[in-house]
Amino acid sequence: MAKGLSWLSLFLSLLVCCGVLAAQDKLLARAQRAFKPVPETPPPLADNPLTPEKIELGKMLYFDPRLSSSWLISCNTCHNLALGGVDLLETSIGHGWQKGPRNSPTVLNAVFNLAQFWDGRAKDLKEQAKGPVQAAVEMNSTPERAVKTLKSIPEYVERFKKAFPGEADPVSFDNMARAIEAFEATLLTPDSRFDRYLKGDTAAINAQEKRGLELFLNKGCVACHGGVNLGGTGYFAFGVVEKPGADVLPPADKGRFEVTKTATDEY
Amino acid sequence: MAKGLSWLSLFLSLLVCCGVLAAQDKLLARAQRAFKPVPETPPPLADNPLTPEKIELGKMLYFDPRLSSSWLISCNTCHNLALGGVDLLETSIGHGWQKGPRNSPTVLNAVFNLAQFWDGRAKDLKEQAKGPVQAAVEMNSTPERAVKTLKSIPEYVERFKKAFPGEADPVSFDNMARAIEAFEATLLTPDSRFDRYLKGDTAAINAQEKRGLELFLNKGCVACHGGVNLGGTGYFAFGVVEKPGADVLPPADKGRFEVTKTATDEY
Repeated sequence: MAKGLSWLSLFLSLLVCCGVLAAQDKLLARAQRAFKPVPETPPPLADNPLTPEKIELGKMLYFDPRLSSSWLISCNTCHNLALGGVDLLETSIGHGWQKGPRNSPTVLNAVFNLAQFWDGRAKDLKEQAKGPVQAAVEMNSTPERAVKTLKSIPEYVERFKKAFPGEADPVSFDNMARAIEAFEATLLTPDSRFDRYLKGDTAAINAQEKRGLELFLNKGCVACHGGVNLGGTGYFAFGVVEKPGADVLPPADKGRFEVTKTATDEY
Repeated sequence: MAKGLSWLSLFLSLLVCCGVLAAQDKLLARAQRAFKPVPETPPPLADNPLTPEKIELGKMLYFDPRLSSSWLISCNTCHNLALGGVDLLETSIGHGWQKGPRNSPTVLNAVFNLAQFWDGRAKDLKEQAKGPVQAAVEMNSTPERAVKTLKSIPEYVERFKKAFPGEADPVSFDNMARAIEAFEATLLTPDSRFDRYLKGDTAAINAQEKRGLELFLNKGCVACHGGVNLGGTGYFAFGVVEKPGADVLPPADKGRFEVTKTATDEY
């Protein structure tokens, strides 16, 4: 009798175990359909082949406050690589201690976004990089001023030549943006625990996290927050389920409406 | 006759050559008495033994804007390591876009200075590091606020524990300053061409530079700008030969007088 019971209990345990494993496999399969792990290497960039010289130049430019009119503010000021690619502020502090209108987005994995800026007004990082340099509330400079500054620094002239070989006038605002894009495209965070899970290592996230993942999939979060970057694949108004009231919405900010002039794109 | 002349010319050339070499040796000997090359490794710090954990923690703190009340300004803002350890501004931009009263000194090789700040009011880099964090015109924070911020970040708590093992309360303002000092002590620029010259490589600087060195020694520049760091070994009023007029001197700045209350120490 005792022996029979013990066989039965082993059999039941195996059944439960198989059920759990099957559920785990099903969860992984669902996750793999909804998300893609962050790649180890940057994707090819339109009209901007990656070279070590260009990436290194872009890195110098990214950290150089001399692209701002005050020489205080660099790309890294608002997109601080030591702080998750952001400044951890509600809205950034810019030229003359002005407050910017929107929260600064992270530059980490940003190369995988459908477009750049919250309203998608720049189609890629190269176009994006030109914005803050010129914005009066951010770096407050001009293309002419930025190029003049860069041309006054012999090491930059040399590095632009090497990053853009064969060009008659390599130190240009366009090439500055190209180099910054090239560097930013390398700012990837592959091999997180969730990435490893997606690659098939089912032990990479724990049971609680798996329950969270299941909720995330079941409740529909994944409808917007999916793909390679857990989001950044479409445009959505602020407050997807319910539009917030005037007490929450910034008064003068129409969101993507400014780009598309389409009523449904209002913030 | 032709043969005799050629021997004579060889002999004269040798004489000139020996003369030049002797002059070169003399110049090198004078330079070696006046200057010392920048060492490859940091000097021992008073009451602050260097460890890799402490240096790495100090590096994180050095670049962390969260030590300022705005979360915008880090040590690196005014002492930018990519710009020679300074901000390249006449006077720095601080909290609320205020202008600081004095030019920010470089942090490179600063560990060899007799004391810190232009007026020497901090005896070492550890004491110096506490100043800007609290200065209303700079980072505008307080020791309490800085420590509260650091204690709220688990990775910092962990790193302070490792950098200051065995201490009951390792996350302190003092230890923050110690870690920053440890990192800053590693910011050395050894093996410059001038350093290599001082070490005996007489070809490391060219003939024009040697003429400049000779002038520097003969005209008395070396009286203040000598030692391991080409200066930083004493206190000197602004305008050593002739005190500038009120149009040049900053109106409310008494210089080292504020520290010593000695009339001859006025800016």
